[in-house]
Amino acid sequence: MRLTAHTDYALRILLHAALEAKGGRQLLGIGQVADDHGIPRNNAMKVVNALSNAGLLETVRGRSGGFRLGRAAETITIGEVVRLTEPCLNLADCAGCILRTQCGLTGMLERAMDAFLAELDQQTLAEAANGSRFPFRAAAA
Amino acid sequence: MRLTAHTDYALRILLHAALEAKGGRQLLGIGQVADDHGIPRNNAMKVVNALSNAGLLETVRGRSGGFRLGRAAETITIGEVVRLTEPCLNLADCAGCILRTQCGLTGMLERAMDAFLAELDQQTLAEAANGSRFPFRAAAA
Repeated sequence: MRLTAHTDYALRILLHAALEAKGGRQLLGIGQVADDHGIPRNNAMKVVNALSNAGLLETVRGRSGGFRLGRAAETITIGEVVRLTEPCLNLADCAGCILRTQCGLTGMLERAMDAFLAELDQQTLAEAANGSRFPFRAAAA
Repeated sequence: MRLTAHTDYALRILLHAALEAKGGRQLLGIGQVADDHGIPRNNAMKVVNALSNAGLLETVRGRSGGFRLGRAAETITIGEVVRLTEPCLNLADCAGCILRTQCGLTGMLERAMDAFLAELDQQTLAEAANGSRFPFRAAAA
C-alpha cells in the first residue's frame, strides 16, 4: 500500500514551499524542486499545476518567477492534499466480484480509509514543517 | 492508494472460504476460486500458499483435495490479513528525501496507517461474511 507518486511529489513540494516561506524566502523554481527531490521535471510541473489550480500554490510568471504557498500552511491539512491528489481512494475494485452482494469487506475498507483520512485531516502542513532547522540545505548554502 | 493485488486476492479467497464454510461446504479448489475471481492460477496458488503458511488456510492434498479456513472466521481479523499480505506499509519512501530530518510528515503518515489498521483489527472475517445469502453462486447452482 503506497501513496501514488503524484501525492508523494505533492507532499514534498508543499512541505518544501512551507519551509521556504518559514525561512523568509518566497519563490521556488520548478526546476529547483525537481532537482532537489529527484522528480522528473514534467511530473513536477504537473503537480505544481494541480496544486496551483486547487489554490494550494500560487505561481508567478516571468524569468524570476516561480511558486509559493497559495494559503497559509496552518490552513492546509495533509488530508486535504491526499484527497486532492490521490486519483482513487477505493482500496479494492469490487465491481466485478461475485461475492459483492454478500460482502461486508467493502464497507470495512471504506471505514478504514475514513479513519486514515480523519487522522490526516487533523494535521496541517505547518505542523509537518514544524521543528525544522531552516535552512535545510546547509550543504548547499 | 490501493491494496496490492496479493492482498486483494487474499481477502477474496478468505471470504470465499468463509462463505463456503458457513454454507456447510468444506473444501475449495484453487482452480475454482481462480476462475470465479478471475485470478491468474499461479497467483492464486501463491496466495493460498502464503495464507496456508500463516495458518489462515488449511490445505488437503490429493485428487479431491483443496483448501479451507485454517481457523474459525471469528478469530481472523482483516487487519491481520492486511499486515500479512501487504509487502510494505510505509506510505512513502522517505529514505533519500532532503527534507527528511525536518519533516513531520513521516510520523503523520505512520499514525494515519496505524488508524487504518486499528480499524481493520476490529473487523473479523466472520463479520465480513455476515449477512451473506448463501449459496452465493445461485446461477451456477
